[in-house]
Amino acid sequence: MSVFNCLKFTRKVTYKYWPQLIRYKNNSANMTTASKNLEIINEKKMFDDLLPEVIMTLQNKSKLSEVPQIGDWLKKMLHYNLVGGKHTRGITTVISYKTIEKPEKVTEHTLKMACKLGWCVEMFQAYCIVLDDIMDGSSVRRGMPCWYRRPEVGITCAFNDSLLIHSSLFEFLKTNFRTNPNYMKMFELFNETLWRTSMGQHLDHVTGNRKTDYSSFTLDRYYTIIKYKAAYYTYNLPVSLGLLLAENVDEKIYKSAQDICLEIGTMFQIQDDFIDCFGDEIKTGKVGTDIQERKCTWLAVQALQRCTEAQRTVFKACYGSSEPAHVERIKRLYEDLHLPQIYKHQEKAMYDNIIRQIENIPIEAARVLFKKLLDITYNRQH
Amino acid sequence: MSVFNCLKFTRKVTYKYWPQLIRYKNNSANMTTASKNLEIINEKKMFDDLLPEVIMTLQNKSKLSEVPQIGDWLKKMLHYNLVGGKHTRGITTVISYKTIEKPEKVTEHTLKMACKLGWCVEMFQAYCIVLDDIMDGSSVRRGMPCWYRRPEVGITCAFNDSLLIHSSLFEFLKTNFRTNPNYMKMFELFNETLWRTSMGQHLDHVTGNRKTDYSSFTLDRYYTIIKYKAAYYTYNLPVSLGLLLAENVDEKIYKSAQDICLEIGTMFQIQDDFIDCFGDEIKTGKVGTDIQERKCTWLAVQALQRCTEAQRTVFKACYGSSEPAHVERIKRLYEDLHLPQIYKHQEKAMYDNIIRQIENIPIEAARVLFKKLLDITYNRQH
Repeated sequence: MSVFNCLKFTRKVTYKYWPQLIRYKNNSANMTTASKNLEIINEKKMFDDLLPEVIMTLQNKSKLSEVPQIGDWLKKMLHYNLVGGKHTRGITTVISYKTIEKPEKVTEHTLKMACKLGWCVEMFQAYCIVLDDIMDGSSVRRGMPCWYRRPEVGITCAFNDSLLIHSSLFEFLKTNFRTNPNYMKMFELFNETLWRTSMGQHLDHVTGNRKTDYSSFTLDRYYTIIKYKAAYYTYNLPVSLGLLLAENVDEKIYKSAQDICLEIGTMFQIQDDFIDCFGDEIKTGKVGTDIQERKCTWLAVQALQRCTEAQRTVFKACYGSSEPAHVERIKRLYEDLHLPQIYKHQEKAMYDNIIRQIENIPIEAARVLFKKLLDITYNRQH
Repeated sequence: MSVFNCLKFTRKVTYKYWPQLIRYKNNSANMTTASKNLEIINEKKMFDDLLPEVIMTLQNKSKLSEVPQIGDWLKKMLHYNLVGGKHTRGITTVISYKTIEKPEKVTEHTLKMACKLGWCVEMFQAYCIVLDDIMDGSSVRRGMPCWYRRPEVGITCAFNDSLLIHSSLFEFLKTNFRTNPNYMKMFELFNETLWRTSMGQHLDHVTGNRKTDYSSFTLDRYYTIIKYKAAYYTYNLPVSLGLLLAENVDEKIYKSAQDICLEIGTMFQIQDDFIDCFGDEIKTGKVGTDIQERKCTWLAVQALQRCTEAQRTVFKACYGSSEPAHVERIKRLYEDLHLPQIYKHQEKAMYDNIIRQIENIPIEAARVLFKKLLDITYNRQH
């Protein structure tokens, strides 16, 4: 019997999960949250400080002497879509580089290069976000109106801007890394990530698009979707880029990086699904819409595995509806099925499993890196 | 006084322009239309025959053993968006390669490689078309419903498919050209073209978006827009790719190729603007919407330069309206201002000017190539 069963569901009550999770995490033997947070804060400051230079580089490259307003637009548009947010993916590139590189090679200059590479990841993310927000009809992102909803932008212009962000990414990569021996691999990695991500998005879309037929809401299908649509670009991309920037990184590290990144990425996406439903909008800066969009989420798959026939009828009647009462009913069903508790246990189990895999990696720097990534992820509340 | 002035405007009557244009072209001293057409027909057959192999390569690369339906979707989606149409841009790559390459190097294998590179250009085009059709709200493309209008597709899925096409292009390029010494230059060229094209699209969008303020509909602005939004990707991209595939092409040829390509591309876009208004829908496979979308076209700019105050009032009242009567009124205004005749003269003047530039190029193979491109373009009716 869940402790939550006796509580009438309100948005406020669900936030009570979070302090418990945080306490639990802070007690974990593997966590040194304070020091990890300090590292992230330091990297974030250095990372964020570089944004004006990134934008200026692109604005100057784009200068059409005939029409300076293109450069002005590029500056405004990139700034709007790159500031704010946690920049976790970009900072992950910096942390990966810094952790895996030989200490004598880590200088102000090489760290700046890692930040620039991280900004390419953030441009990839901004590109996906601008498009995603249009496709999902979202209203708010990072606490601000989605780009396409700005009165001077609109859908047509925002689409075109997403292409501008995407091509800006590669122009910036070329400007800064053309002489790097791994330049070609970097470019290919970005493209392969886009390929996989859009395949995952396609699967996600068709799986959620079958109205009341939920036969494809299986755990297998769910894991495939999230590996493709999220894990490659959230973890494998920034970590692999950090490794490509470091000197003489062993091929074996790449392989284990991919395996571990997909595992952590899976945990990340399960958290994302949970946060979309039960997270704090003030912290996340966005309003969850998975239920309304009939998404194949961890919560939906778990619910369908555990519900009675009566509950299944409720699920079918309310899932995929934008009606606030239906959305609330689905959330209550999730609570009735103890999914918040089950989630907490599963998160811990995934953490323990990944830690075991990390312990088996024979290279110390790689173990340190993957533990850092895991701890950063495990701690997140938004 | 235009001969067209005495004719009441109907769609049927406007087609009468075309036989005149064709006669005119066939009489030109610089044209050997029959032989040019034969070359295009031969290349087109070889080019089109390769499509199943292109799609199979991508489908096999994408194989997710967990979900074969992704491969099936990719096949269906690529096929729908790549078949049909003239494939002029793709074939331009093949013709450029074949003309500029040393004759002893032109084999079945190298021509096949040129076709594969041409299919990358067609994927770039398909990517732009899928997005453009959504952004413009178009209904028909190449005589078939636009991809996003298919019942099993829809806007969200079509957007994602455009990303799949874009990333497929680079995956296909990698699979086939990774060992080519110009591989890096090829992908940079694709990206730079996307960068410039989306800047042109942005300019095009903001210029046409000012309601009844037409102060920015100047010739200077018009030429900037079409250079960026069309000339780079219609000519510079396929021609430069053909040159990158050929062995030992002089740097000077690249430079003159870019200059000439932008000139021919400008002529191409002016034709496109004319065809959008006065072309034969059966031949073009699409319905023109430039007037309804308040586009900054050659016709609109010319009209604004020549009209009386009374005609300007008519223009302002009717341009940018979807009302059929308003659209017809604008077309009649274009005729009253003799724009079809002026167009014919301008096309000839551009042709003569480009021929003069071509004659100044000191390398014979390059002269042959650029004359071929010019003749192919000058002859087009759709």
